[in-house]
Amino acid sequence: MENIKHKLLVLSGKGGVGKSTIAVNLAVWLSMQGKKVGLLDIDIHGPSIPKLLNLNGKGVQVLGDKIKPILYSNTLKIMSIGLLLPDDSSAVIWRGPMKHNLIKQFTSEVDWGQLDYLVVDSPPGTGDEPLSIIQLIGNADGAVVVTTPQQVSIVDVKKCITFCRQLNLPVLGVIENMSGFVCPQCNSKIEIFKSKGGEQMAGEYNVPFLGSIPIDSDLVSACDSGKPFVQFNTQSPTAQALCLAFSSLLKTEKTQSNKEK
Amino acid sequence: MENIKHKLLVLSGKGGVGKSTIAVNLAVWLSMQGKKVGLLDIDIHGPSIPKLLNLNGKGVQVLGDKIKPILYSNTLKIMSIGLLLPDDSSAVIWRGPMKHNLIKQFTSEVDWGQLDYLVVDSPPGTGDEPLSIIQLIGNADGAVVVTTPQQVSIVDVKKCITFCRQLNLPVLGVIENMSGFVCPQCNSKIEIFKSKGGEQMAGEYNVPFLGSIPIDSDLVSACDSGKPFVQFNTQSPTAQALCLAFSSLLKTEKTQSNKEK
Repeated sequence: MENIKHKLLVLSGKGGVGKSTIAVNLAVWLSMQGKKVGLLDIDIHGPSIPKLLNLNGKGVQVLGDKIKPILYSNTLKIMSIGLLLPDDSSAVIWRGPMKHNLIKQFTSEVDWGQLDYLVVDSPPGTGDEPLSIIQLIGNADGAVVVTTPQQVSIVDVKKCITFCRQLNLPVLGVIENMSGFVCPQCNSKIEIFKSKGGEQMAGEYNVPFLGSIPIDSDLVSACDSGKPFVQFNTQSPTAQALCLAFSSLLKTEKTQSNKEK
Repeated sequence: MENIKHKLLVLSGKGGVGKSTIAVNLAVWLSMQGKKVGLLDIDIHGPSIPKLLNLNGKGVQVLGDKIKPILYSNTLKIMSIGLLLPDDSSAVIWRGPMKHNLIKQFTSEVDWGQLDYLVVDSPPGTGDEPLSIIQLIGNADGAVVVTTPQQVSIVDVKKCITFCRQLNLPVLGVIENMSGFVCPQCNSKIEIFKSKGGEQMAGEYNVPFLGSIPIDSDLVSACDSGKPFVQFNTQSPTAQALCLAFSSLLKTEKTQSNKEK
């Protein structure tokens, strides 16, 4: 872990808000900026990263006492329990201590090499997995917190910010996903899951707001087919919203680390 | 637990698919059919039930060695860790063993009384919480598995069905939530998260398909304002889709229990 310059955790109090989508696109975007990047998926029960990058069926090699991560590209290394399972439908029926041991292996026995950034995709909640990674990863730069705009999601994400504060993990910012929807037939803007909830909450908790990502059925299709949106749909407004949010994130991170110096 | 006739678990491999929305509406619908119902929320990190039923701020009483559940109505009793927290933003930063102890208290020390149905809303995944409840609850009738139609969700839900089978918990059926969207401006049908994925998966795994629930921004608003849809929006097509799915569920349950006899 000491060969890794920056460590970013993608967190959320709530499932299904698009954490893995954000984590994958952030990692791919960073690697497209010329950075050496690792993407670590610590969602043990529902690992989505292999599907989102179309890596299913790619096996992981063990060389000596080191596990070789899968290369998505020359500058992007991936590790996920999904790469170790025999098939899609295999369930990992584990309690906390076993999950802790696996996360320990992922941080200490994977051959990450020299990295500019490690992006960690964590499952929802404030339990074993996020606790373990924060303890095991050492000094993380901070957390990117993902939410959707509706109140039922905001409630859980507030808990996530409380969690970060109690563990002294800086919150680098909030991304509001699934924010508004533009009907592709009539161009009306429909607020299916509302909008602005994430922005208001960020203001209330005095954490940076990084941007809103609209609901986009093309993004859903891209996820299902394993083609990261920021790489394959560069011209779409949704991809541009993602890139803008990631640029804001790097700016916040820089300001924060300058302050610390 | 022996005073409870039927025990139904609402499960999903994936977060954010609407498990809590389905659990709340199922419990309210059963109570509207004249049944005595309990609704137990075992999502320790992100309890949504108090918000979905507008119960925030209602305290729980302890009488002798029994915890009194909150009454939503004369025939519907509720228990959730959300009812025990000082406020919305409090995070429960617990590892597995503490979560197991709380779920044990919820099953053994809550004064549920005589119930026709206990509906349990579980967090996503195949880890501590669903493992604990299945072990502690005794003979459950089975699981209602909730998914959304897109492949990224289906992958996790397959794991959930594998989990049920390994633990000998009958799968009573699959509900496909967020299935298609009708633009309220132009009435075009837009498949934001696709559709039919849940139905196909149910066929593939030979488990009953209970029905599809469309994406409906009125349902999102109802969740945020704590007004269960099947009670307050009885005429809406979405509420009718929910009621149809619940009727199918009871039919499946009956057939299954007749087979066992």
